[in-house]
Amino acid sequence: MKALVKHRRGIGAEIQYVGIPKFNDEEVLIKVKASSICGTDVHIYTWDEWSKRRVNPPYVFGHEFSGEVVEVGSKVKSVNPGDYVSAETHIACGRCPQCLSGKYHICKYTKIIGVDTQGCFAEYVVLPEGNVWKNSKEMPYDVASLQEPMGNAVHTVLAGDVAGRKVAVIGCGPIGIMAVCVARAAGASEVYAFDLNDYRLALAKQMGAAIVVNSAKQDPVKAVHQLTEGNGVDVVCEMSGNPIAINQGFKMVTNGGRVSILSLPSKPVEINITEDIVFKGITAQGITGREMFKTWQQVSGLLSSGQVDLTPIISHHFPLDEYEKGFDLMIKGECGKVILYP
Amino acid sequence: MKALVKHRRGIGAEIQYVGIPKFNDEEVLIKVKASSICGTDVHIYTWDEWSKRRVNPPYVFGHEFSGEVVEVGSKVKSVNPGDYVSAETHIACGRCPQCLSGKYHICKYTKIIGVDTQGCFAEYVVLPEGNVWKNSKEMPYDVASLQEPMGNAVHTVLAGDVAGRKVAVIGCGPIGIMAVCVARAAGASEVYAFDLNDYRLALAKQMGAAIVVNSAKQDPVKAVHQLTEGNGVDVVCEMSGNPIAINQGFKMVTNGGRVSILSLPSKPVEINITEDIVFKGITAQGITGREMFKTWQQVSGLLSSGQVDLTPIISHHFPLDEYEKGFDLMIKGECGKVILYP
Amino acid sequence: MKALVKHRRGIGAEIQYVGIPKFNDEEVLIKVKASSICGTDVHIYTWDEWSKRRVNPPYVFGHEFSGEVVEVGSKVKSVNPGDYVSAETHIACGRCPQCLSGKYHICKYTKIIGVDTQGCFAEYVVLPEGNVWKNSKEMPYDVASLQEPMGNAVHTVLAGDVAGRKVAVIGCGPIGIMAVCVARAAGASEVYAFDLNDYRLALAKQMGAAIVVNSAKQDPVKAVHQLTEGNGVDVVCEMSGNPIAINQGFKMVTNGGRVSILSLPSKPVEINITEDIVFKGITAQGITGREMFKTWQQVSGLLSSGQVDLTPIISHHFPLDEYEKGFDLMIKGECGKVILYP
Amino acid sequence: MKALVKHRRGIGAEIQYVGIPKFNDEEVLIKVKASSICGTDVHIYTWDEWSKRRVNPPYVFGHEFSGEVVEVGSKVKSVNPGDYVSAETHIACGRCPQCLSGKYHICKYTKIIGVDTQGCFAEYVVLPEGNVWKNSKEMPYDVASLQEPMGNAVHTVLAGDVAGRKVAVIGCGPIGIMAVCVARAAGASEVYAFDLNDYRLALAKQMGAAIVVNSAKQDPVKAVHQLTEGNGVDVVCEMSGNPIAINQGFKMVTNGGRVSILSLPSKPVEINITEDIVFKGITAQGITGREMFKTWQQVSGLLSSGQVDLTPIISHHFPLDEYEKGFDLMIKGECGKVILYP
Repeated sequence: MKALVKHRRGIGAEIQYVGIPKFNDEEVLIKVKASSICGTDVHIYTWDEWSKRRVNPPYVFGHEFSGEVVEVGSKVKSVNPGDYVSAETHIACGRCPQCLSGKYHICKYTKIIGVDTQGCFAEYVVLPEGNVWKNSKEMPYDVASLQEPMGNAVHTVLAGDVAGRKVAVIGCGPIGIMAVCVARAAGASEVYAFDLNDYRLALAKQMGAAIVVNSAKQDPVKAVHQLTEGNGVDVVCEMSGNPIAINQGFKMVTNGGRVSILSLPSKPVEINITEDIVFKGITAQGITGREMFKTWQQVSGLLSSGQVDLTPIISHHFPLDEYEKGFDLMIKGECGKVILYP
Repeated sequence: MKALVKHRRGIGAEIQYVGIPKFNDEEVLIKVKASSICGTDVHIYTWDEWSKRRVNPPYVFGHEFSGEVVEVGSKVKSVNPGDYVSAETHIACGRCPQCLSGKYHICKYTKIIGVDTQGCFAEYVVLPEGNVWKNSKEMPYDVASLQEPMGNAVHTVLAGDVAGRKVAVIGCGPIGIMAVCVARAAGASEVYAFDLNDYRLALAKQMGAAIVVNSAKQDPVKAVHQLTEGNGVDVVCEMSGNPIAINQGFKMVTNGGRVSILSLPSKPVEINITEDIVFKGITAQGITGREMFKTWQQVSGLLSSGQVDLTPIISHHFPLDEYEKGFDLMIKGECGKVILYP
Repeated sequence: MKALVKHRRGIGAEIQYVGIPKFNDEEVLIKVKASSICGTDVHIYTWDEWSKRRVNPPYVFGHEFSGEVVEVGSKVKSVNPGDYVSAETHIACGRCPQCLSGKYHICKYTKIIGVDTQGCFAEYVVLPEGNVWKNSKEMPYDVASLQEPMGNAVHTVLAGDVAGRKVAVIGCGPIGIMAVCVARAAGASEVYAFDLNDYRLALAKQMGAAIVVNSAKQDPVKAVHQLTEGNGVDVVCEMSGNPIAINQGFKMVTNGGRVSILSLPSKPVEINITEDIVFKGITAQGITGREMFKTWQQVSGLLSSGQVDLTPIISHHFPLDEYEKGFDLMIKGECGKVILYP
Repeated sequence: MKALVKHRRGIGAEIQYVGIPKFNDEEVLIKVKASSICGTDVHIYTWDEWSKRRVNPPYVFGHEFSGEVVEVGSKVKSVNPGDYVSAETHIACGRCPQCLSGKYHICKYTKIIGVDTQGCFAEYVVLPEGNVWKNSKEMPYDVASLQEPMGNAVHTVLAGDVAGRKVAVIGCGPIGIMAVCVARAAGASEVYAFDLNDYRLALAKQMGAAIVVNSAKQDPVKAVHQLTEGNGVDVVCEMSGNPIAINQGFKMVTNGGRVSILSLPSKPVEINITEDIVFKGITAQGITGREMFKTWQQVSGLLSSGQVDLTPIISHHFPLDEYEKGFDLMIKGECGKVILYP
């Protein structure tokens, strides 16, 4: 089959023809219909420090997709050929204390599809039965592929109260934009979006942000101060990974507010714990992955009802062969989500 | 001043001229701009069993309103003449264990404005400083008057997760209709509305219910079973007070779901605790009043942002003198909210 | 092997010799070291209405036990021969919406070991890998067998705040007594215990109840009123199943309190929803099984640390052959927990 | 009256004779029976950087105490002469968004008794009615004075689940020691205590810590790793304010665990957000003051029931005149709590 292979320990990737992956009796074989490029894929593509430590080329990468099941292992009970599916990309061990209390998304021994295993930038992909999420046949393939990153946004935004509350989204990459949509859908009274990239701020505005602020041009903390009569926002969704922005997030949240952090800053960050966390009585939450599968149920409910419409976020569609165009756009930040068709 | 007085221990009420109420140094005097009729006012008007036990005519009744402050007592610090305001109608004692832990809405010694004290169906009303809620000057008087009952709907709907969830609203009086709006605004994937009155079901549909069911014509539990692939709804907002409907609510909720009860059934209700609560792992919540003032903050956020628009629910406007028209409509259930202008 | 078989559709049970049960490649074979008699076993033994509907003799019943693994199926990864184990007795489907959100204990398609499958009143028992809980080798076999019912008590008591709070336990069967212990261990300021049986009240007192009340001799609601300066208790653990006691529970809880119901009343119960749930802002929870495996982690922590000592609750030990003595004591309520050794 | 006055902008304090403080009609006058020295008082006494910015000598400092009401203002309703009382030391504004939602402890405009107002190291002190907490007359004066700092410990420990969980307390000053007691009383399976001071570690051990670790001699993270089979603790109570210890806390907590921070590090602290918060799905909470008055209710319940006994923590009693002895011991860390009698 045709596949986009991370072929070497260095920059880039290449199209290769490889064997259709084997599946065991607890796995399913899926024909990929659409996949999408995640920021993590860009890290692997550009071969950054994290990738050097984590991934082992050559292998097929990619983890966001939708497809149709073609065959299932002999022990598989809940999935059938013909099912339309996507993947929860965290493969949990099932036996650590976290898994035993139902918190699979923070399993101590998690493996990630397309990072630690063969991925979905290919004609076929294999999944363990337990990682399959069944899609409605009404959902378009490109939207279905976005459920996984939308799950990150949902997990972040819905980690506490939102309805009638003021929400800041810091960092307007695709998941940040999705967070704007989810916060609006969940009843946020106002969503303020922050980024350094005007293209993405314009998209945030289009998707429902009441106010967008280019943090290079305007002080985000002062802006929030003015917008909220000095009270600050109730919720901060931190999706930038930028140390300055993270500190701004802690300063713009109201006493007793919530700072939910999905981003992965590349170095330790100095935080004024005394003033910005303790005296303010703040709750800071680390958010990783998606609750399995509570978050998927929420994502599905928000999409099927039309409460969230991801279509405007999908800016580009390419055949898999033109993967370079997609990665270039992602690197420049001049896109929403980019879909690749195998 | 002109006032609508519950004048005797019997049916009805009458317009009388009475003195402008006195206020002490911790109270404020408010000129009423708009008031609205609550179901409780109808109980008092029709002199039902509850009213016979609770209220002491003659007195001015009514508790939903908006107005402008005209004078304030000498100890009042946070309210000024010229402020636009509405009232939290529960006057809490401030010293019982509930009040001491911030749960004023379930104070053991609560008094209710317009029930236990002089009310707002009049040109002026007096409030303790602590019951004043300041309105935005942009908010129309009639909408501002509806914040109090909308608070009941918000308190009920937002007493647990809603976003991406399926919600049933049982009983489509005005607060039920508001619950439909709030559930939609808070991201419910689908809202199903149930009543016996087609006028109100039509209004529920107009306000965003995905499906409305006349429970006299169709079995609500079967309907939900079909709509949810046999799983049931995640949340039931019980606003009917009808024993049959209450039991239907427990049967239509999914295992682990939530049944939030705002209604006041007039007699004890038989519940199949074993099958409908214990084995299903259900949480049933009694909801009363509004959290002071968390709920008001949420109401304010939902209204000011346009997430909830109550305008279509206001079906009638009358001068106070024509109160009989308003009460007749309420008794017949042929209205949304009825506004009275003093 | 020797087994206690529910041999017919009628009262009683008998010792029979039956084959050692087969296990498939996802199951484990366990040598039973100790088992204990649950109230459910008594229902089956006495052949009550519920048993007539639910169980299909002949079969081996019993579900509380501890044992040692002797063989494991070829696909089993996390359990090894020689492991000391007990069983989570709910076998969940793994694919319904409840299971998919980690709430296995309220799976729509739950099967119960020893009720719907072959049980543990025997020399050997077979379990699915996913239902095995590993015990510390320091824990005595009889105590280890009690973890399952203790899990019910833990699930009930810890379903909300307890530390520094006043807790009522209504119904002092073995799980009620365990609830007294757990509430004390979790910091309850006072535990009040209610029953009609003086033997069990004495045991509740011994295990840490501050006050015990025989509800046949003293009005429980008045007693609580006096003990709490009219405020009521913060938490009610309902373990009696008695309609009168259930209503007393709702009346003795303070405004905003919690009523957690583990019991299974045999008929629908009339509840004064308006006065006892809505106006009081009560939360009533149905509790079933144990959270898998959060509750087991809590049980394990409470036992291994000595925070809870179940030893005094174990009143009788018999060889399996003398099962009739055990069941007679259980029927009369003249015992704590009864252990049977195969 | 005799009072301990922070007499100048510099080190120390001195006994002076000053007028009995005046009270307005919403305040009460209290005869101080016992007071205790808080770490904050030591900061003021030693005139550290924080004190230089915050306090304005000359004034009477001190805020932990118990006493008896001698006179009350004309508007005071809930307090009477002869009442035994202590003080919630945060004076909240009552009208900011935090106060309006019942979160008085994180009021934007909080004033602290003995810091921003006249304090309790004196024969008499004045309190607003709303800050008075009534004590049982059975409670000894010295113990009653410790309710305020114990409230910090309770607020920290009970900010999430504890029963059956493993808890680390980092920093064994008096509030850390109290946290050990509270965690044990609330059902923690094991409490591990960390400090650099062997005197205080010995006290932690005496008060129920399963294991104590001198972090200067043993690596705390490795110690926890070994004690928990590599899983980490479920809860960290951070009470040291030391940047290294804070980072150790984040590293020793299990995935999905809770880090509740009561301490006030004097500078910003570098945190590895990616590895220690996000990937682990940690919740970090800033804890300040006591929930008003939920925490006081919990403190009262834990003390009156004997679940927590603070007596062993009180190491020294002095007359107010011998304040220097008390402050010297506090500065050296060679004491538990020090009581001063006016």
